[in-house]
Amino acid sequence: MTTTKTKWTKKDLLGLKDLSREEILLILDTAKGFCEISKRPIKKVPALRGRTVVNLFLEPSTRTRVSFELAEKRLSADNLTFSGTSSSSLAKGETLKDMARNIEAMNVDLIVMRHTSSGAPHRLARYLRPGIVNAGDGINEHPTQALLDMFTIREKKKKIEGLKVSFIGDILHSRVARSNIWGLTKLGAEVTVCGPKTLLPVDIESLGVRVTYDVDRAIEGADAITLLRIQLERQKESFFPSLREYMQTFGITRERLERAKRDVIIMHPGPINRGVELADDVADGEYSVILDQVTNGVAVRMAVLYLLSGARS
Amino acid sequence: MTTTKTKWTKKDLLGLKDLSREEILLILDTAKGFCEISKRPIKKVPALRGRTVVNLFLEPSTRTRVSFELAEKRLSADNLTFSGTSSSSLAKGETLKDMARNIEAMNVDLIVMRHTSSGAPHRLARYLRPGIVNAGDGINEHPTQALLDMFTIREKKKKIEGLKVSFIGDILHSRVARSNIWGLTKLGAEVTVCGPKTLLPVDIESLGVRVTYDVDRAIEGADAITLLRIQLERQKESFFPSLREYMQTFGITRERLERAKRDVIIMHPGPINRGVELADDVADGEYSVILDQVTNGVAVRMAVLYLLSGARS
Amino acid sequence: MTTTKTKWTKKDLLGLKDLSREEILLILDTAKGFCEISKRPIKKVPALRGRTVVNLFLEPSTRTRVSFELAEKRLSADNLTFSGTSSSSLAKGETLKDMARNIEAMNVDLIVMRHTSSGAPHRLARYLRPGIVNAGDGINEHPTQALLDMFTIREKKKKIEGLKVSFIGDILHSRVARSNIWGLTKLGAEVTVCGPKTLLPVDIESLGVRVTYDVDRAIEGADAITLLRIQLERQKESFFPSLREYMQTFGITRERLERAKRDVIIMHPGPINRGVELADDVADGEYSVILDQVTNGVAVRMAVLYLLSGARS
Repeated sequence: MTTTKTKWTKKDLLGLKDLSREEILLILDTAKGFCEISKRPIKKVPALRGRTVVNLFLEPSTRTRVSFELAEKRLSADNLTFSGTSSSSLAKGETLKDMARNIEAMNVDLIVMRHTSSGAPHRLARYLRPGIVNAGDGINEHPTQALLDMFTIREKKKKIEGLKVSFIGDILHSRVARSNIWGLTKLGAEVTVCGPKTLLPVDIESLGVRVTYDVDRAIEGADAITLLRIQLERQKESFFPSLREYMQTFGITRERLERAKRDVIIMHPGPINRGVELADDVADGEYSVILDQVTNGVAVRMAVLYLLSGARS
Repeated sequence: MTTTKTKWTKKDLLGLKDLSREEILLILDTAKGFCEISKRPIKKVPALRGRTVVNLFLEPSTRTRVSFELAEKRLSADNLTFSGTSSSSLAKGETLKDMARNIEAMNVDLIVMRHTSSGAPHRLARYLRPGIVNAGDGINEHPTQALLDMFTIREKKKKIEGLKVSFIGDILHSRVARSNIWGLTKLGAEVTVCGPKTLLPVDIESLGVRVTYDVDRAIEGADAITLLRIQLERQKESFFPSLREYMQTFGITRERLERAKRDVIIMHPGPINRGVELADDVADGEYSVILDQVTNGVAVRMAVLYLLSGARS
Repeated sequence: MTTTKTKWTKKDLLGLKDLSREEILLILDTAKGFCEISKRPIKKVPALRGRTVVNLFLEPSTRTRVSFELAEKRLSADNLTFSGTSSSSLAKGETLKDMARNIEAMNVDLIVMRHTSSGAPHRLARYLRPGIVNAGDGINEHPTQALLDMFTIREKKKKIEGLKVSFIGDILHSRVARSNIWGLTKLGAEVTVCGPKTLLPVDIESLGVRVTYDVDRAIEGADAITLLRIQLERQKESFFPSLREYMQTFGITRERLERAKRDVIIMHPGPINRGVELADDVADGEYSVILDQVTNGVAVRMAVLYLLSGARS
C-alpha cells in the first residue's frame, strides 16, 4: 500500500478521469482514517463544523444520498438536501445555472450533485465558488462509487496494482464502470468488461480494457468481479431477449465462480436484482463484499468532503 | 406510582406484547425525567451525541415521524428520515431486507420503522444489529403510542392499576388499541372495547378485555376513554352505513359523557375527525388530554431511544 | 443609517403592515451583524441552540425554505420541515388548526409558515404560543423578502429615505410588492408600481404609491427597480396577450435602463424568467444585485428568528 505525500489542491471532484494516481491514493489513504470513526459509539468529528453542504439530487437516489448525508453529519457539517425536481423552483422554469448561483449566494461551501445529464457538474464547477462533488452524472462518471470500490479492493487484497478486475453487465449505461475503469487502470489493475453486445459501448477498448462477451472468460482468474445492475426499467428497449436468458448467460452463480481465483471478491454497487445479475447464494455468500462497499462508502465520502473543504488542519 | 429497579436489556422495542410489567414501568419512569427537558429554553441533552438514527417510514406519517425526529434531535443524535417508497431504491425492486442491510452497513445505531405490513419490524430485528423501534406495523402494534397513552393516564390519575379504560371506534384496524390492551392489562387496568360489530375483531375477548357494542356501557364509570380514528378512506368498504349514523351511534358528545366519571379523561391518538368520533366541544373541552398526549409522546420516545441506545451512563 | 434603541417585543412577524419604522430598522440593524457570520469559515453561532423551529411550507417553495433552513442551522437551532400537503396528516382531513396545535404541543419555539391563503399565519398566531414567521401568505405579505430587499437597498445606497423605488410586473398577485410597499413607505421611500392594467390592484394607490402603466416612467429617475416574476402558470388566465408582447412592453433591457439613474440597482425576488421580465444582460449585468439579495436573505432571516426567540442575551 502506497502512502503518498501529495497535497489536495483541486476545488472539485468531478471524475476519476481528471485525477492523478497520487490524488486517488491520497483519497484512499484519507478514507482509511475515517473508517474507524464510524465504528466508534460517538461517530462524529468536528472537522466540518459550521461548513454548509448542499446535496442537490436532481435524479432520484437513496443509497448514495444517505451515504453522503451520513458522511456530512459525522463530519459535523450543516447540510441540506434537495431531491427530485418536483416542488422545487426548477419546476417553475428556473435554469440549473440560476438555481446553483442562488445556492452559492447563500455561502454554501460544498455542493454534492447528481444529475441525469453527463457533464452537468463539470459545467457548474466552472463558474461556482463552492466545491462540487459529482455524485453521478448521466452515464459519465460516479467517482465516489469507484473510489469506494477501489478502497474495498485494497482493503481485501492489500494492493490494486496487477490485480485482475472484471465488470459484468450493462457497461453501456454504467457511470460506475466508467469511473472504475479510469481509476483502476491508473492504479495498474487489468480491467475486463463483459456483457451483451448491445450493452457494451463500441469505443470501450480505447480506455485500456479487455472486452469479452463470454462471462466465463471474464471470471477466469479474476481477483475481483463487479456485477452491474440490469436496469429493469430499460428492458422495454430490448437490449437482451429476457431476464431469464440474461441470468442464464451473464448471471453469476456459485458454479460459475469456480473458474475465478479461490479468494475472488464479488462486488455490486446496489441495489441488487437478486436472481438476475447475481444468485442469492453468491450475493449473501463468503465471496461477497457488497456490504463492505456500503460501509466503506461513508468513509470515502467523508474523506472527499474533508479534502475538498480544505479542512486539513 | 411504582418505581422499578429493572435494567433495560432488550435490543428492540417491537411491541408491548413482548414487554414485562417492569419493563413498561421502566420506560414510563425514564420518560418522566425527559418531560422536563422539553420545557426548558434549551431543549437538548447530549445523551445520543454521535449516534445515528434512521427513521424508515414506509407508510405515510406526520405526527409520529415528527415526534420521533424531535426526540432524536433533543437527544443530540444524528438522524435521517425516509418517507414513503417513492423515489427510494425500494421502487427499483430492492427487497426490504437488502435495504435494511444497507442501512445497517452504514453503522446506524437505531432504526425507527413504520411499515404497512404487520410483523415487518420483527422480521428485520431478527437479523439486524441496530436496535429497531416499531413506529407502527400494519394492524399489529404501535408501542410508543400506547406508552405515551399510559404515561398520560398515569400523570393524570397517579396510577393505572384498577382504572377502567375504554376504547371506542375502529378496534379492528387499530394497532393503537392492540398495543394499549397489551400494556394496560399488564399494568392492571380493566379495558373495555366498543365499536360497530364489523370493526371489532372476533377474537378480541381472548386478550382479556370486555367487549360491548353499546357506547353508553363503554362510557359508564370510565376513568379514561380513547376514541379511535375512523379511517374515512376505508369507508368505501362500508364497515358502517354513514358517517352521520356513526356519529349518532358512537360519536362522543358532552351529553353522553355524563355517564362517565366526573374526572374522566378523553384521549385520541390523532388526527381527529371532528364531528365524527368526537364533538368539537369534547375535543377542546376540559376532559380532553389529547394535546398532553402529544407533549408526552416526545418524552416517551426520548426514553425509548435512550434506553435502547444503552446510553445509561 | 439610523440605529435605533427599540427593543423587540412582538411574538410574531406577520407582515410589515404591523411593524413600526423603528421595528423595521431594528431588524435591519440586527441583520447587519449576522451578515458577517455567513462569510466566516465556521458559519455558526450558538444563539438558538436547543430551540426548536418548524418550517411549515404548505405551498411549494425552494429558495425561501432553504434560506430559512440555513438561517436556522447557522443559529444552531434544531429544525424540521414539512413541505406540501401530500403524505402529511392534512391529507387525512385534519384542520390546519389541529395540525398547528399538535406542533405547539411538542414544545416548538418558532413556526415559519408559508400558506396559499392570505391571513393563515395571522389566524394561527392568535392562539398559538410559538412565535410565527410569515414566509408568504397568499397574495398578502412576504415580510422577510421585503426586509431583505430593504436591507439590500440600504447596503447599496446607505439610506432608504427619499429614494425612488419602482416595482414592475404582476403587482396584483405579489405579496412581495405589498410587503415592500408597507415597509418602504414607512421608511420614507417614494414607491412606484407599474404593470399591465389587469395585473394592478384597483385600490393600490390608497397604499401611498404612484401608479403607472408606462414602464419608461417607472424607470425614469429610479434608484432601485424590482422586477416581479410573471407567473407563467397563470398565463392561461390571459392577464396579457403573450409573453413576447409582455417582454416588449414591460421587460427590462439595457436600452430601457438608460432612463434610470446611473447607479440604479436591479432587484428580483426570483426565480427569474429570463427573457420575460428581464433580459439576460440586465439580470447578469453590473446593475443587478439579485444575488446580493439572496445572500442578505439568510442574514435577515437569522435576525428575525433571533429577535423572535428573545435570545438577546
